[in-house]
Amino acid sequence: MSENGAHGARDTLHRETSALDLRSGATVDPPTSPALPAHATAQIDRGAVPPPRAAAAEPEPPALRTVEAHLEEILAAVPQPEPIELAVLDAQGLLCAEEVVSARALPPFDQAALDGYAARAEDVAAATPDAPVELAVVGETAAGAAPVSSLAPGQAHLVTAGAMLPTGADVVVPGVWTDGGVVRVQVHAGPEAGSYVRRAGDDVSPGTAAVHVGTPIGPAQISLLAAVGRDRVQVRPRPRVAVLSAGPELVDITTQPAPGQVVDVNTYALAAAARDAGAAAYRWGILPTERRRLTEVLESQLLRSDLVLISGTFAGSGDQVQEVLAELGPMHLRQVTMHPGAVQGFGRLGREGVPVICVPGEPVAALVSFEVFVRPAIRSMLGKRQLFRRTVQAISAERLLSPLGYRQYLHGQVMRHPDGGYVVEPLGGGDEAMLARMARANCLIVVDEDVTEVAEGGLVTVMPLLLGG
Amino acid sequence: MSENGAHGARDTLHRETSALDLRSGATVDPPTSPALPAHATAQIDRGAVPPPRAAAAEPEPPALRTVEAHLEEILAAVPQPEPIELAVLDAQGLLCAEEVVSARALPPFDQAALDGYAARAEDVAAATPDAPVELAVVGETAAGAAPVSSLAPGQAHLVTAGAMLPTGADVVVPGVWTDGGVVRVQVHAGPEAGSYVRRAGDDVSPGTAAVHVGTPIGPAQISLLAAVGRDRVQVRPRPRVAVLSAGPELVDITTQPAPGQVVDVNTYALAAAARDAGAAAYRWGILPTERRRLTEVLESQLLRSDLVLISGTFAGSGDQVQEVLAELGPMHLRQVTMHPGAVQGFGRLGREGVPVICVPGEPVAALVSFEVFVRPAIRSMLGKRQLFRRTVQAISAERLLSPLGYRQYLHGQVMRHPDGGYVVEPLGGGDEAMLARMARANCLIVVDEDVTEVAEGGLVTVMPLLLGG
Repeated sequence: MSENGAHGARDTLHRETSALDLRSGATVDPPTSPALPAHATAQIDRGAVPPPRAAAAEPEPPALRTVEAHLEEILAAVPQPEPIELAVLDAQGLLCAEEVVSARALPPFDQAALDGYAARAEDVAAATPDAPVELAVVGETAAGAAPVSSLAPGQAHLVTAGAMLPTGADVVVPGVWTDGGVVRVQVHAGPEAGSYVRRAGDDVSPGTAAVHVGTPIGPAQISLLAAVGRDRVQVRPRPRVAVLSAGPELVDITTQPAPGQVVDVNTYALAAAARDAGAAAYRWGILPTERRRLTEVLESQLLRSDLVLISGTFAGSGDQVQEVLAELGPMHLRQVTMHPGAVQGFGRLGREGVPVICVPGEPVAALVSFEVFVRPAIRSMLGKRQLFRRTVQAISAERLLSPLGYRQYLHGQVMRHPDGGYVVEPLGGGDEAMLARMARANCLIVVDEDVTEVAEGGLVTVMPLLLGG
Repeated sequence: MSENGAHGARDTLHRETSALDLRSGATVDPPTSPALPAHATAQIDRGAVPPPRAAAAEPEPPALRTVEAHLEEILAAVPQPEPIELAVLDAQGLLCAEEVVSARALPPFDQAALDGYAARAEDVAAATPDAPVELAVVGETAAGAAPVSSLAPGQAHLVTAGAMLPTGADVVVPGVWTDGGVVRVQVHAGPEAGSYVRRAGDDVSPGTAAVHVGTPIGPAQISLLAAVGRDRVQVRPRPRVAVLSAGPELVDITTQPAPGQVVDVNTYALAAAARDAGAAAYRWGILPTERRRLTEVLESQLLRSDLVLISGTFAGSGDQVQEVLAELGPMHLRQVTMHPGAVQGFGRLGREGVPVICVPGEPVAALVSFEVFVRPAIRSMLGKRQLFRRTVQAISAERLLSPLGYRQYLHGQVMRHPDGGYVVEPLGGGDEAMLARMARANCLIVVDEDVTEVAEGGLVTVMPLLLGG
């Protein structure tokens, strides 16, 4: 494991943080009515509620952390796995990790770019439809292995696209500009020297780099790699991400939940999100409750993973998962000034210091936290330069309220405005559950910490959630 | 196989064709100099060159076909494979093919949205920091299976986020708004009834559809499917696309090519492109030259595929691959008014009438043809509504020339302009080989049939080539 990825990640981060004036840790006024209005906090997490005025007189609460501070800690700590060699088709979507130097010229030989007659440009320069030039057709070459032939003045050679050019020829006269003769040919127009000819090495000359370090490998790069004879290539591998969930209320998807129990949805949703972000995700499932077995599972996943992702409702004290994590290394659970997802955890655990990210157990908060913290971490591990989704400014179709000092993430539907720009409609509202509504969203609306209200028609920042395909 | 996908596909197509005034089949003036200027036709394909004036006096050339006409034939003919059932994580990126009706309520029971005290709203309505209300703490419920408890007036119940609410309770008072008492608790503020409570069925009530037919399945949908207890779901499957190449000049990637031979890059590049478009791509490789074996391979791939994709330079007559394809069904090779990629083929072959698309063998023309014809076909087979990439208008950083009557596709680099909008720079030029340049491109510039020149600073249509991730 190398850690050389942290610098690029930090550089990128600065663009995201520069414009923000955060008020972390400040005590804030309670809303006049504690019941939050529509389109305010969609999901409330443990500790996410601003204290009432009375609390200001009491001892300072534990310092709150900004989204940026937590994200920066994670991005600075996630390593970039060492490059591996893969078959070119398996390298699709990954970043090239070597300078691929071509041993060959591309194209490998001078060739016809289309069907016609290989000729000498000077022979046909004067040809017109009214005064055609006649040449002797002395041979015929199709694409494919062929002996080298040559052309004397006044001669032409029938060629098909891709066929090797005879020596002496410096132009291909398209067949449609001739009378199509087989023994002798009448040429009606003379292309300039070099026309319809692909010269050896025009594209890539031997010894030059065809694909560079850091290039994302798509179909065009695969085409080029194949052309220079490479069927394998060094790439930044997909980070192996183990996805686990914790909580005494959880049962597996195939179990009918008893009263008080809920189905483990997060290992499915987070594994899907991790895969979408480019990771090789491994859905482990619900952590066992027996302590020795719990330790074994965590230790085993730390050995097999580049990143461990755990969702759960971690109790303030006496939580067994938290205790076991603490035995494996410094795991910090922190109050982060965001809604939803106010409790976030990060640590580097085990002998190898494998990064472990803890996100809330509430499914909406879990996926929002993934977007904010885990997706950038996975992209950093992949070596990507753009860690964050592009955001756009959109006109809010409704009034939005947001608690002061907290960055709020709301699910919404963003669409193009007929007059240009974007309009966004928040989905659902209040403190209702949001699972079905989240599934209808195509974006997150981001309301900054220092904003408490966005008027209908006001501008908000929107993060479109584009999925692959 | 059903063919109900064709209507949606056609509807979408109309948006793309409506604005175009095509001149298919018209004879056109030759350029004053047949050597095309920089940034004109990057790759010339067999028959792609406009005939010189003399040809107008000769018998009418075979009718040329527009890009739209060829695309429309393909989209009308590609079937949509029948839905299949997959494990939810394998369904990622596909379209749901059933109405997923929830047998459960979501959330399954009334629960606390955060840590605090379950209470009766009327008991705490009058609470203020100066005049707190005191309640008796009669129980404690954590998240997880629990017996149903109940609450009398004046009582409270310690709850953690996700815990079942005692009957009688209609509000959760956040812990930070109290003195945190364990036997008796002082409440400093009274939330409105329903605050910080998630009601059973708020999100999804039993018997209602949680995920609809046609919904793309991403992490949020997987979360919802898991929550309603579904570990498998009916989806539109990935079409199985076999990718083959034909040409006597081709050798496999691991072979050092002899003079006149070139490496088969297209099965790699097209398989990657097909996978990127959402297909399950199978790279078969170079078609055999022995006729009986050639027939066997083609028949076998028709049996195993939803779509067969063949790249090759098909000679005008006497081409063996073309002959064998004709034996398997009506395969039409046509001149299409585009650059590059002027020879395109389509047919429905074999007993099942499996669609077979033939694209040129020249690697740049092959990938451009994939973009124009094959990607929309694969997306139609997946049931997607948006078959085409979004296009944007961009300012051309250079003068562009394009032959009249042909739609030209040029590789370019598009970037955002500091003042808004986009600027595009064409890559490479003339009739040089373009494999390395194609690999540097992030877009295709589309110059319409009736445009022969775009001035520097003029607007052109640009199709950004976004790859997954």
